[in-house]
Amino acid sequence: MKPGKENSGKGVRSLFLLLPMIVPRQVKKKGSDPFPAFFLLLFLAIFPGVYQPANAGCLMRGTGDLGIVIERASGSVQVVDTTAMSSLFRIEGLGDLSHASAVFSRDERYAYVFGRDGGLSKLDLLCGQLVKRVVQAGNSIGGAISQDGSLVAVSNYTPGGVKVFDAVSLEQVADLPAATADGGSSKVVGLVDAPGQRFVYTLYDAGEIRSVDMNDPDKPEVQRFPDIGRLPYDALITPDGRYYIAGLFGEDGLAMLDLWQPQQGVRRILDNYGKGEEKLPVYKMPHLEGWAVAGRQVFLPAVGRHEVLVVDSDSWKETGRVAVHGQPVFVVAEPGGRRVWVNFAHPLNDTVQVIDTLTLQVVHTFEPGKGVLHMEFSPRGEAVWISVRDADVVQVYDTASFTQLAELPVEKPSGIFFTARAHRTGL
Amino acid sequence: MKPGKENSGKGVRSLFLLLPMIVPRQVKKKGSDPFPAFFLLLFLAIFPGVYQPANAGCLMRGTGDLGIVIERASGSVQVVDTTAMSSLFRIEGLGDLSHASAVFSRDERYAYVFGRDGGLSKLDLLCGQLVKRVVQAGNSIGGAISQDGSLVAVSNYTPGGVKVFDAVSLEQVADLPAATADGGSSKVVGLVDAPGQRFVYTLYDAGEIRSVDMNDPDKPEVQRFPDIGRLPYDALITPDGRYYIAGLFGEDGLAMLDLWQPQQGVRRILDNYGKGEEKLPVYKMPHLEGWAVAGRQVFLPAVGRHEVLVVDSDSWKETGRVAVHGQPVFVVAEPGGRRVWVNFAHPLNDTVQVIDTLTLQVVHTFEPGKGVLHMEFSPRGEAVWISVRDADVVQVYDTASFTQLAELPVEKPSGIFFTARAHRTGL
Repeated sequence: MKPGKENSGKGVRSLFLLLPMIVPRQVKKKGSDPFPAFFLLLFLAIFPGVYQPANAGCLMRGTGDLGIVIERASGSVQVVDTTAMSSLFRIEGLGDLSHASAVFSRDERYAYVFGRDGGLSKLDLLCGQLVKRVVQAGNSIGGAISQDGSLVAVSNYTPGGVKVFDAVSLEQVADLPAATADGGSSKVVGLVDAPGQRFVYTLYDAGEIRSVDMNDPDKPEVQRFPDIGRLPYDALITPDGRYYIAGLFGEDGLAMLDLWQPQQGVRRILDNYGKGEEKLPVYKMPHLEGWAVAGRQVFLPAVGRHEVLVVDSDSWKETGRVAVHGQPVFVVAEPGGRRVWVNFAHPLNDTVQVIDTLTLQVVHTFEPGKGVLHMEFSPRGEAVWISVRDADVVQVYDTASFTQLAELPVEKPSGIFFTARAHRTGL
Repeated sequence: MKPGKENSGKGVRSLFLLLPMIVPRQVKKKGSDPFPAFFLLLFLAIFPGVYQPANAGCLMRGTGDLGIVIERASGSVQVVDTTAMSSLFRIEGLGDLSHASAVFSRDERYAYVFGRDGGLSKLDLLCGQLVKRVVQAGNSIGGAISQDGSLVAVSNYTPGGVKVFDAVSLEQVADLPAATADGGSSKVVGLVDAPGQRFVYTLYDAGEIRSVDMNDPDKPEVQRFPDIGRLPYDALITPDGRYYIAGLFGEDGLAMLDLWQPQQGVRRILDNYGKGEEKLPVYKMPHLEGWAVAGRQVFLPAVGRHEVLVVDSDSWKETGRVAVHGQPVFVVAEPGGRRVWVNFAHPLNDTVQVIDTLTLQVVHTFEPGKGVLHMEFSPRGEAVWISVRDADVVQVYDTASFTQLAELPVEKPSGIFFTARAHRTGL
């Protein structure tokens, strides 16, 4: 942990307030030895560390411009400042972060990091500290924070199901099993938060979407939507919190639930999605969080093709395709939706392309370096941060001019997450 | 200023670190009088206030769940905590806040409050302090903060034009005059921030929209869009930063500029807006910031009627009307857009109604009290804060159950602004 620029010293100040109670007593007795008090003060002066308060080294500053970058190989993260474009802290000891994601507390002070090994870590961004870490399952793949910020949920592969924790203490408050028809436990994928203090998730082995109302954490109310199709491998929720969409590994098309009208049940959209493509192993399917919603248009990676698909979000029909450099991995919309930025699968993962959503043209192509893994925009979109794994750097670009603004040394960077996500649904 | 729960004591701690340099020198000289050092310490102990660091009383905490409430009659604001639903500080001395608005720094630590009297005040939300106040004009009506957070702009009635300030120092960095054809200076209305480090605003007396690129603050690049119609009285920008729409007092319809395609110029939309209505004094026209964009639908107050208009944002044609309790003032969308909340003009300003944007039905009506002036949602929409001026309270409601969660004493509350606005365009 690097020292903070501004320190908070509540403990030391309290000590000063106590001194009048100690010292004057000695002074009043004229001629008596004032040394005990003096040496006490001297001791305090020489060993201020003894009275180091718990929050020494913590920063007293706003948290709206903070973020974290995952160092995937070393189980660590860096806490970054998006205004200064600099690193504030490195926090270690987070376990296996080879496939990690994060959400933020509603005050934007704490990050919750979900590791591949089932670890849930709570980080204090102001103090650069790991506050608490629980290994809540054998193998997990993602998490979410409730609308009001009070609950953190984690979805698991092993033993399956969802566990819900108090966001302050990380005490477990609910266990949502995911039993399959044959009595087994299903892997859970595509866990997101939704309006109405809900979590929505998908049972991989059971082909089922579930929506759970957590208003009373002691009595979660689970709505089940079975028979959505075979082997749903991932899911997303649109930024307005309305549509929940699961990708199906076992068949073509996607399963969509309108959370504003759940009584209408799940319907199939984009019948062609995946059709005719060679069935690929799950780990090569593009993540659905790599979709961009820009106004009425949705941009998503084509499976196995060098194309970005364009879909109308009213009809959920494909309206166009954009030819791109490689197999797209993440297709991310700039805040406001004017452009989407695309990165690509190995071996073409050294390149980023930018598509104008009005003209559907690629307007810019550049090569940050080998292993572009993730892109995150500043909240109002003036800058984008890009992880370049093999170069061990994160690069920051001006989105208007495409000029590089900064480069930060980061060990094998992968996911980048800014605190503004705290204010958004489904992130 | 109320004392903070956690204090930062950098100054005092530094003092402790200095003590070893003062005290041991005295002690080494055996038999010499250690009293000078002792009395120095005693003095410090008795008068700790003398060494009160500048940030004593400041809070070391996240800023994502903070906000301010304007106390319109007393020139003060309260700093509030939206998690605890409580007040942290009162800050006084902000001048005439009878018509005030606010924006936030990108780190969500500072608020910039624009007062009616031309005052621009910078508040430190962590320390509960007025950092700086400049009276930058004789009469102002609003302001905006640039996309990157570096510039704060204020639009003026007297003497007209726009002034731009450094967000850190409040030093003036640009003066954008608004000359009319006859050599006068136009009142400026509808000032907003836009992507590309732009400010967009409207000249009331000249009937003109201007878009200024502030990438180089020393050389603002102004684009002019003249002849938009007579007496534009207010304007808004859609949440995606694409459409800028000005209301026209002098004629029917609204003037719209597509900022993604400015070369297409300004077009007239909603030809019926205002048509057939008695021409009302400007101060009774509904503010355009009282529009709600919910998905593809836009909800706006009808002029002079007990109706909310529904407009399609593709065609910009009216698609429906919802009968409501009174003349709408603010029509505000819940985050995500599932419902819009409406308050009303005097004498029906004791009531709030909630419209379902899917069914276009009023689904809830309630009476917070006389003088409902403003409503602000928590960033992810689980709660809404409502100013009830005549009752001197702000009420907090659960948006799912409509139950009241809290009530805070606030003197003549008007505008409520939460820090999450820092991350959004046009707020």
